[in-house]
Amino acid sequence: MAKVAIVMGSDSDLQVMNKAADVLDELGIVYEMNIISAHREPDVFFDWAKGAEGRGIKVVIAGAGMAAHLPGMCAALFPMPVIGVPLTGKVLSGTDALYSILQMPPGIPVATVAIDGAKNAGILAAKILSVSDEEVLQRLKAFSEKMKEEVMKKDEKLKSLGRKNYS
Amino acid sequence: MAKVAIVMGSDSDLQVMNKAADVLDELGIVYEMNIISAHREPDVFFDWAKGAEGRGIKVVIAGAGMAAHLPGMCAALFPMPVIGVPLTGKVLSGTDALYSILQMPPGIPVATVAIDGAKNAGILAAKILSVSDEEVLQRLKAFSEKMKEEVMKKDEKLKSLGRKNYS
Amino acid sequence: MAKVAIVMGSDSDLQVMNKAADVLDELGIVYEMNIISAHREPDVFFDWAKGAEGRGIKVVIAGAGMAAHLPGMCAALFPMPVIGVPLTGKVLSGTDALYSILQMPPGIPVATVAIDGAKNAGILAAKILSVSDEEVLQRLKAFSEKMKEEVMKKDEKLKSLGRKNYS
Amino acid sequence: MAKVAIVMGSDSDLQVMNKAADVLDELGIVYEMNIISAHREPDVFFDWAKGAEGRGIKVVIAGAGMAAHLPGMCAALFPMPVIGVPLTGKVLSGTDALYSILQMPPGIPVATVAIDGAKNAGILAAKILSVSDEEVLQRLKAFSEKMKEEVMKKDEKLKSLGRKNYS
Amino acid sequence: MAKVAIVMGSDSDLQVMNKAADVLDELGIVYEMNIISAHREPDVFFDWAKGAEGRGIKVVIAGAGMAAHLPGMCAALFPMPVIGVPLTGKVLSGTDALYSILQMPPGIPVATVAIDGAKNAGILAAKILSVSDEEVLQRLKAFSEKMKEEVMKKDEKLKSLGRKNYS
Amino acid sequence: MAKVAIVMGSDSDLQVMNKAADVLDELGIVYEMNIISAHREPDVFFDWAKGAEGRGIKVVIAGAGMAAHLPGMCAALFPMPVIGVPLTGKVLSGTDALYSILQMPPGIPVATVAIDGAKNAGILAAKILSVSDEEVLQRLKAFSEKMKEEVMKKDEKLKSLGRKNYS
Amino acid sequence: MAKVAIVMGSDSDLQVMNKAADVLDELGIVYEMNIISAHREPDVFFDWAKGAEGRGIKVVIAGAGMAAHLPGMCAALFPMPVIGVPLTGKVLSGTDALYSILQMPPGIPVATVAIDGAKNAGILAAKILSVSDEEVLQRLKAFSEKMKEEVMKKDEKLKSLGRKNYS
Amino acid sequence: MAKVAIVMGSDSDLQVMNKAADVLDELGIVYEMNIISAHREPDVFFDWAKGAEGRGIKVVIAGAGMAAHLPGMCAALFPMPVIGVPLTGKVLSGTDALYSILQMPPGIPVATVAIDGAKNAGILAAKILSVSDEEVLQRLKAFSEKMKEEVMKKDEKLKSLGRKNYS
Repeated sequence: MAKVAIVMGSDSDLQVMNKAADVLDELGIVYEMNIISAHREPDVFFDWAKGAEGRGIKVVIAGAGMAAHLPGMCAALFPMPVIGVPLTGKVLSGTDALYSILQMPPGIPVATVAIDGAKNAGILAAKILSVSDEEVLQRLKAFSEKMKEEVMKKDEKLKSLGRKNYS
Repeated sequence: MAKVAIVMGSDSDLQVMNKAADVLDELGIVYEMNIISAHREPDVFFDWAKGAEGRGIKVVIAGAGMAAHLPGMCAALFPMPVIGVPLTGKVLSGTDALYSILQMPPGIPVATVAIDGAKNAGILAAKILSVSDEEVLQRLKAFSEKMKEEVMKKDEKLKSLGRKNYS
Repeated sequence: MAKVAIVMGSDSDLQVMNKAADVLDELGIVYEMNIISAHREPDVFFDWAKGAEGRGIKVVIAGAGMAAHLPGMCAALFPMPVIGVPLTGKVLSGTDALYSILQMPPGIPVATVAIDGAKNAGILAAKILSVSDEEVLQRLKAFSEKMKEEVMKKDEKLKSLGRKNYS
Repeated sequence: MAKVAIVMGSDSDLQVMNKAADVLDELGIVYEMNIISAHREPDVFFDWAKGAEGRGIKVVIAGAGMAAHLPGMCAALFPMPVIGVPLTGKVLSGTDALYSILQMPPGIPVATVAIDGAKNAGILAAKILSVSDEEVLQRLKAFSEKMKEEVMKKDEKLKSLGRKNYS
Repeated sequence: MAKVAIVMGSDSDLQVMNKAADVLDELGIVYEMNIISAHREPDVFFDWAKGAEGRGIKVVIAGAGMAAHLPGMCAALFPMPVIGVPLTGKVLSGTDALYSILQMPPGIPVATVAIDGAKNAGILAAKILSVSDEEVLQRLKAFSEKMKEEVMKKDEKLKSLGRKNYS
Repeated sequence: MAKVAIVMGSDSDLQVMNKAADVLDELGIVYEMNIISAHREPDVFFDWAKGAEGRGIKVVIAGAGMAAHLPGMCAALFPMPVIGVPLTGKVLSGTDALYSILQMPPGIPVATVAIDGAKNAGILAAKILSVSDEEVLQRLKAFSEKMKEEVMKKDEKLKSLGRKNYS
Repeated sequence: MAKVAIVMGSDSDLQVMNKAADVLDELGIVYEMNIISAHREPDVFFDWAKGAEGRGIKVVIAGAGMAAHLPGMCAALFPMPVIGVPLTGKVLSGTDALYSILQMPPGIPVATVAIDGAKNAGILAAKILSVSDEEVLQRLKAFSEKMKEEVMKKDEKLKSLGRKNYS
Repeated sequence: MAKVAIVMGSDSDLQVMNKAADVLDELGIVYEMNIISAHREPDVFFDWAKGAEGRGIKVVIAGAGMAAHLPGMCAALFPMPVIGVPLTGKVLSGTDALYSILQMPPGIPVATVAIDGAKNAGILAAKILSVSDEEVLQRLKAFSEKMKEEVMKKDEKLKSLGRKNYS
C-alpha cells in the first residue's frame, strides 16, 4: 500500500517528477502518482487531498510551476508532511514557483526542495518515513554510502588519468 | 446588493485592502468585505467562493501576501473576473505575492494590479462594471477628470510659489 | 461589432498575441486586432485609443515588451478595462515589461496577466464581458468544464499506462 | 528525551528560532536547542551532528543567515530529515540564505521553509513525527482547528464592527 | 529663456527632482519646472511635450517612479535628448521605474541615470549643452575640479586626524 | 572629422556595437571606432580618453559587459556626454553591466541605454548633436517619420491579410 | 611600513571600512588608509595605484558602493592581490556594487567579499600575508580559536540560562 | 610540490575548473586537483581540508554550484586564503552559488571571483603567491603585458580592416 503520494497539475511536469518516483523505487518505497489540478478541477483536488490520509498516505510530494498553488493547497488539506518541488517554466527560472511554494504563511508549512529538485523530494520523503522505519533508514544509509563511493572513484580516476584525459 | 466582494486571508491585510473599499464607496458601488483564508479554512473558503455567483457577486477582489494563493483559488472557483492585489510582507518587497498571483497557468486568469495597489483594484472593479453600467462609467469619467484637475493645480502652485517654497 | 480590441506595438508580438485572439474565437467573441505603437506614432495611437469607446470597444488587450508603455497609455485614454500582457524580450525574462505594465500609479489600473500570458488575457476579457452577458458566461463555464475533463483524462491515462509508458 | 534538535550558528539568530521552540512547546514535543557554528568550530559541529542520531534525535531544525551552510552540512551528516530556516540579514532580504539552503545538490535534501519561517519549521517537525505518532497527529489537527476558528472570529468581528471600527 | 525642461508626474517627486534644478542653478543654466502627468492628463501632456521644441527647450529631464512612462513618452514626442530619472517608490527599490525608463525599444532612446540620480541628470543636461556652449563646458570643468579638491581635502583630513577622530 | 567616438573593450563586443555605427552612418554622422580596454591597458585608455576632446570628439559611446567600467571611466576623463551600453554576457542577462554603468555616483553621469541597446546609443548621440545642428535634427525627424510609416504599413498589412496569413 | 592599503572613494564609506582597519590592528598588521576617487580624481588615483607597489604595499583593500569601479581599477594598475568590498547604498541592497566588483573580465581578478564585509576583507588580507609570514599565520590561528571559544560559551550560556532567559 | 589546491565537488565542474589549472600551468605554478564533496563525503572532505596545510598548500581554489558549501567549508578548515568560484547550474544563472560563496559571516572570508570565473581564480592564486615570490610576480607582469598587446592588436586590426571586414 502506497505511503507516498506524488501529485502534479499537468503531464508536462511528468518528466521532472519521474525522478522522485525513480528514487522511491530505488529505496523500495511504494507510492501512488497522480495528475490533479487544484486550479482546473478544485473539487476533484479537494476530495483527493482530503482522502489521502484515509488511504494510508503519510507524505505528499507535489510538483508545480508558475503560480504553484498545488503544494500549498495540499498542505491546507492533508495533515502530515507535504514536500513541494518548484518547477521551471518558460521564464523566470522557476523563481515564480519557488516563492509560491516556499513562502507559506505561519501554520501551514511546505517542505520545499531545490528548483526541479524532484529527486531530493523523493529522498526527503524516504527520510521522513525513516524516522519510524528502521529498514528505510538502513537503505538511506546505504544510498549515502554509494554516493560517497562514486565521488571517491571520480577523484581516483582524475588522479590516474589526469585532468586532460578525463571524460 | 453587493456586486463586488473584497476578500483577504488575515486582518493584517485590512489596512491596505481598505483602500479598495474606500474608492468603491467614492464611486458608489456596493461591496461585501470578508476575512477568509484558503489555507487555514479551505472548506469555508470553498463554500464562500462557490456561493459568490449565487449571491450576485460580479467581481472578486482578493488581496494576499507571501505565497498568495487566495486570488488564484478564487479564480478556480468563481467564473467571473478576479482581481488580485499582491501585498508586501516583511521581506522580498511583495515579489513573492506578485509571482504567486500573476503567474497563473493558461485557463485561469487573475487580473493583477500593482504591489499594495488596492486602490487600483477598486477602480478596476468599477471599470469592469462600467462595461454594462452607464452610470458607473460616468462616475469613472468624473473621477478621472478630478485627478486631472488635481495635477493641474499642483503645476500652477509650483509655478506661482516656486520650487523652493512648494510644500 | 468588435467588443474587444487587441493591440500591440510591433508585428514581432503577433505570435504570442494570437493566443488571445484564438481563445476569443473559441469563446465566440468579436474583436479587432491592431499594430499601433505609442512610441513610434503617438498621435496615431492617441486617436485610436480615444476613439475606441465610440467604436463600441468594451475591453482593450494590450501586449508589449521591454519598457512596455502601451497598456498603461491605453489605460490613460480608454475609460473601461485594459488588460496588459508583458512580453518576453531577448533579456530579463520579461520582468522589464512586467514592471512597466503592473506598477501603474493609483488611479489608472491595468489588469496584468502572466508573462506571455496572452491566452489568459483573452479569457479575462471574456470574463469581463460575462458580467453582463449570460451567454458568454455559459461558454466560459463550458470552457472550464472541458479543461477539467482534459486533466481527468490525463490522470486516467497515467494510471492505465503507468508513468514509464506515458508520452 | 528530545526528538527534535534546534541548532543555529549564533545567538543573534535566537529571537527568530525561538518561534520554532514555542510551537514545539505548544505541541508537546521535547527538543534540544544549540548554538553551534559549522564555520567557526567545524570539529565541534561534526561531532554534534554525527552524534545526533545516537542521542535519539529524529528531526533537526537548522536556522542560518547569509551563506547559510549549517542546514546543508547537517543534512550531510545526519541521516534523518533536516529542516532549514533561511534567516534575513542586514541586506538581500534573506535571499542569500534561501539559496544557500534550498539549492542542495541531488542526494542531500534540506526541507526549506519560508524566510524567517521558524514557526513553520517547528510545525513541520511535528508533522514529520506525526507520521508515526498518533498523539502528535491529533494535536496538529487541534492546532489547525484552532487556526480556523481564529480566522472565522476575525471575519465575524469585521462584519459586526465594520471595516472602519476594526482594530 | 529656458533651455532645459524638468518634468515630473507628481509633487511627491519634487524633493528628489529639486537636485537636478539645484545643480543647473549652480551651473548657470536656465530651466523650466513642471508637474505634468502622462497618465492623469494625457492631452495636457501631449500638448506640453509637442510644444517644448517651439519654446526653445533643448533637453528634457523627466523623473518618474513605478511604471514610469513619462520619460519614454517625452522621447516619443520631443526630438532632442530626453534624460530619465528612475525614482524609488515604496517597494522594489526603484527597479520598476528603472526598467520602465531604460528598456526603450529601438528608435526612441531615453538617457537613463542612476536610481534617484536627479543631480546627475542635471549635470548630464549641462554636458549635452556643453557640446555647443563653450561657457557651459568651462563651468563643468570647474565643477569637476571642485569635486576633485573636495576628495583631496577629505584624504588630507583623514591623514591628519586619523581614522578614529575623523567625523 | 569624427564627432562621435565609439569604444569597446573587446572585439567580442563588436557585433552589438556595430548597430550604433550603422545608425550613425544612416544619419550621416562621422564617428571613430576603437577597441580599448580600461582594465587591460589603463595607460593607453587614459591617454585616449584624455585626448578625445582635443581630437574634436563631442560624444563618447562606450559599450561594455560584466563589471563594465569603461563607460564610467570615460565619464571621469571626458568632459562632454558619455553614453553607456550595457552588454549581455554569458550569465545575468546583462544586469551586471547595467548596474556597473547606470549607478554612477553624483557628479559623473553616464547616459545609459537599454541592455544591448547600441542602436539607441547611436540615435541618442545624434540627438545630442541635434541640439546645435539643425541638419541632424531634420534627419532625426525624417528617421522618426520613417519609423512611424513602417508601423502603419504593418497595421495595414495585418488588416488586409488577416492575422493568420500575416508573416 | 604598511603592507596593506585600504582605499575608499568617499568619507561616507569610512564607517564600514573601519572594520577592516580594526581587524588589521587586532592582527598586528600595518596598513595605510586613503580616500581617493577613481571617478572624481582619476589622475590622482592612477598615480596612487601605480605607486603602491613601490611603497611596499602587498595587498590593496578597496571598498566602494554603487557603480563601484575603484576595486577593479586598482586591479588594473596594481600587480598583487586586490580585495573588493561592495558597500550598500540607499537602494538595491549593495547588489549594484557587488556586480561591479565581482564580475571582472578574465585576466584582472578582484577578490570579492560579502556586501559590507570589510572585517572579512581585513582577515583575507592577513591570510594572504600569512602565506609567507609564519607570525601572521599563528595570529590568525589564535583569532580562529578565539571565535570558536566565543561560540562555545554562547552555547553553554544558552544551556545554563535556558532560551527564555538568554539575552 | 603543489602550492595551490584546486577542488570541486563533482566531475561536472571539471570543464570550467580546468581554466584555473590552465592559467596556473601558463604561470608555472604547481597545483593539485581534486574531486571531493563536502556533502557526499564530509569525513573525507574534512581530512583533506585539515591536511592541506601540512602538505604545503598555500592557497585553495574551490569551485561549486547551487548551494555551494565547498569553498566556505574549506575556509572553515584551512587557515590560508580560499578562493571561491561560483558555478552556473541549470537555473538561476549561478546566483545561488554566488550568494552561498560570497556571503560568508564575519571571521571566515572566501575570496570570491566572477560566476564561472575559474581563470581569474587561477590568476588570483598566483597574485597571492606573488606577494612573496618575485618570480611569480614577474610572470604576472609579463602576462598582463601580453593581454595589453592583444587588445592593441585588435584595435589596429579594426582600424586597418574596418568594422565591416573585421572577423
